[in-house]
Amino acid sequence: MAQGCLIVCDGNNGAGKSSVIRAIEEFLHSRGHSYLVTREPGGTRIGEKIRSVVLDPETPELCDTTELLLFAAARAQHLKEKIIPAIQAGKVVVCDRFTPATVAFQHYGRGIPLSLVQSINGFALEGFSPNLNIILDVDPEIGMRRVASRGEGLDRMEMQKLEFLTRAREGFLRQAEEAPDTFVVIDASQPFDAVSANVLAEVDALLAKLA
Amino acid sequence: MAQGCLIVCDGNNGAGKSSVIRAIEEFLHSRGHSYLVTREPGGTRIGEKIRSVVLDPETPELCDTTELLLFAAARAQHLKEKIIPAIQAGKVVVCDRFTPATVAFQHYGRGIPLSLVQSINGFALEGFSPNLNIILDVDPEIGMRRVASRGEGLDRMEMQKLEFLTRAREGFLRQAEEAPDTFVVIDASQPFDAVSANVLAEVDALLAKLA
Repeated sequence: MAQGCLIVCDGNNGAGKSSVIRAIEEFLHSRGHSYLVTREPGGTRIGEKIRSVVLDPETPELCDTTELLLFAAARAQHLKEKIIPAIQAGKVVVCDRFTPATVAFQHYGRGIPLSLVQSINGFALEGFSPNLNIILDVDPEIGMRRVASRGEGLDRMEMQKLEFLTRAREGFLRQAEEAPDTFVVIDASQPFDAVSANVLAEVDALLAKLA
Repeated sequence: MAQGCLIVCDGNNGAGKSSVIRAIEEFLHSRGHSYLVTREPGGTRIGEKIRSVVLDPETPELCDTTELLLFAAARAQHLKEKIIPAIQAGKVVVCDRFTPATVAFQHYGRGIPLSLVQSINGFALEGFSPNLNIILDVDPEIGMRRVASRGEGLDRMEMQKLEFLTRAREGFLRQAEEAPDTFVVIDASQPFDAVSANVLAEVDALLAKLA
């Protein structure tokens, strides 16, 4: 049986995660890999319920600590119920957002001390970590314009201001610098074909390494 | 302005918390105290949404780590949005369940290491702690019969088995032994008038101390 793994796709909103994940999915399908595409917060019945609480644009009173604990709660459930069993079954799991977002948004964005964010993350992860974190990097102003141009209502995290997103971007880049073995930064301001080609080369390299 | 405080009423289900809390409420009202009665999980708009996720009897797959994080998330919101502002306004806050339940159910009941439960609790509390924890102690078999006799559907925590509730009871008692300054155990197998009199004497003593 093939070795399962977890590939995370993360970065600020408007960086093109959804399109990139579809490209990864097509790539895995074309290569005959068994795979699972999922997302955070969410990914399970309970996680989707938590998602609807934590992303609700109608609850501006949600405090930073609660936000962090809710993301962690959704992650613990997701990991135990879905991600780990899929990896054990030899699947390539592709997850839209994971721990990099928590560090970027809750530490760099909200200002919760890094040690606390890491300790709550660590509690949810129980020693587990992704094999590859793909960070789609985009200028926050461009990201915001892309999100706005979708013409859909914004969720609570998408309603953040430019300064918050600028700090979060720095947070994504800093994490990548500090853990170059498991992080890769892709310039998401490039045309989509180039972004996609860069991402798929990284996915291909990981799968070759694990084969 | 009077000094605000937090009085917690906790213990296994079926110990008579609701009736005791009504008695405390009448007592505070008759004495002219400004007070707030609230509950966990819940107490706020966001907390009540979290409550509906964590107590949902239809989601048996909810894992222990997620459960602990959800209770902590509801508590952090409750504290910041409701409990602390009420205490600062000089109110006596009476809360149905709080940290004693988390230690009893998630550590003694579920077996999550005490250090982890305390560290997640500590993160939600940010240094805050109740002035008085009233533990209503009842034989778990009697408690289960009382809950069943209500004839209502059971929530996810009320569906626990006898061994779980026996461990939880031990957990409530152990906490009280370890922190006699802020815990008091009331024998809830007594007739209600006796339970109520014991509880109100403790409440009265606390308020006299704080006056």
